[in-house]
Amino acid sequence: MRRIPEVTIRRLTHYLRCIEFIKETGAKILQSKELASFCSISDSLVRRDLSYFGEFGTKGVGYSIDELEKHIKKILGIDRIKKVGLAGVGNIGSALLKFPLKKNGFHIIAAFDIKKELIGKKINGIPVYHEKEIPRIFKEKGLDIGIIAVPQNVAGEVAEKMIKGGVKGILSFALLQCPVSKKIPIRYIEIAAELEILSYEIEKEG
Amino acid sequence: MRRIPEVTIRRLTHYLRCIEFIKETGAKILQSKELASFCSISDSLVRRDLSYFGEFGTKGVGYSIDELEKHIKKILGIDRIKKVGLAGVGNIGSALLKFPLKKNGFHIIAAFDIKKELIGKKINGIPVYHEKEIPRIFKEKGLDIGIIAVPQNVAGEVAEKMIKGGVKGILSFALLQCPVSKKIPIRYIEIAAELEILSYEIEKEG
Repeated sequence: MRRIPEVTIRRLTHYLRCIEFIKETGAKILQSKELASFCSISDSLVRRDLSYFGEFGTKGVGYSIDELEKHIKKILGIDRIKKVGLAGVGNIGSALLKFPLKKNGFHIIAAFDIKKELIGKKINGIPVYHEKEIPRIFKEKGLDIGIIAVPQNVAGEVAEKMIKGGVKGILSFALLQCPVSKKIPIRYIEIAAELEILSYEIEKEG
Repeated sequence: MRRIPEVTIRRLTHYLRCIEFIKETGAKILQSKELASFCSISDSLVRRDLSYFGEFGTKGVGYSIDELEKHIKKILGIDRIKKVGLAGVGNIGSALLKFPLKKNGFHIIAAFDIKKELIGKKINGIPVYHEKEIPRIFKEKGLDIGIIAVPQNVAGEVAEKMIKGGVKGILSFALLQCPVSKKIPIRYIEIAAELEILSYEIEKEG
């Protein structure tokens, strides 16, 4: 497949948010200008993005919402379910266990922690295992994605355990301090960093 | 102030994570190669980033951790406390109310929701108000930053309320669908999008 820039891929996820939103109204057809207004971008950019992936709109009529959704999901590889293992059932981890990721095609199958009082329990129907079980459970259940929501100082070893279990990609809320042993895609959600960058942008404006 | 690229600013936040981490060991001096290894980047890039902001390391000795921290915090505008208002006390919102953002200089002063059972309560010491109070409370308490953790379909109106209250910047977990009335810095944390982009990267590799 041709390499698509990350900004374009991110816009595709925004189009999905718009589709989810508009589907609730019962609509079947979507105009590029609706997508554009939802995402605060230009109409022509939307049309360029979508034409990039083949011709599937009808000029003057618009896009079939179902077809557009199917198409974007296929590009993003979420036309089939992705199985997720979550390490760290603290504040953020517990929130994620209750977060409606299923509707986006991400099913959290197992959670991991080291706190005795959590292990063996189920949270929102998801079983919690000890972190030392990560390699075994990831392998046995064929988990695709690992989410890391453990403290910074143990995030690296948790990542290595996931890799041992054959994880294909990681989303981490903690900065991994060392390069991991095997090259797989790793993305970060850095809450403190986003606030710090926002603070910088505020001061710069002021 | 000279415009600094976002990648550099983000690296500064990573240096801060490293400093927090190393401070716990009681160290007073930090070498650029420790920062480099922590952030999985090259030693020369660290030195270039830091020299960019003036000369404050001593060749062969390293950087004073306290000075480096003070300096980076000043650049990021977090040398003084930033007051934060949080809208949406659901899964993510409640997690953020318990998240240790204070140690990064971000103090959540007030939370907002529409659920009757939450309004008037305190969570982790933080009072919860009705969302219609956003403009008044933001103004009265001089809140700098608004965090939006409400559902997608009301995120836009919540943003407008914050702007009415004089907010200086917004961090949103929901995509804001329309351009907001006043131009202020807005950053996003998109959990579903990050997983979708990760999924795309996994498929591309495979």
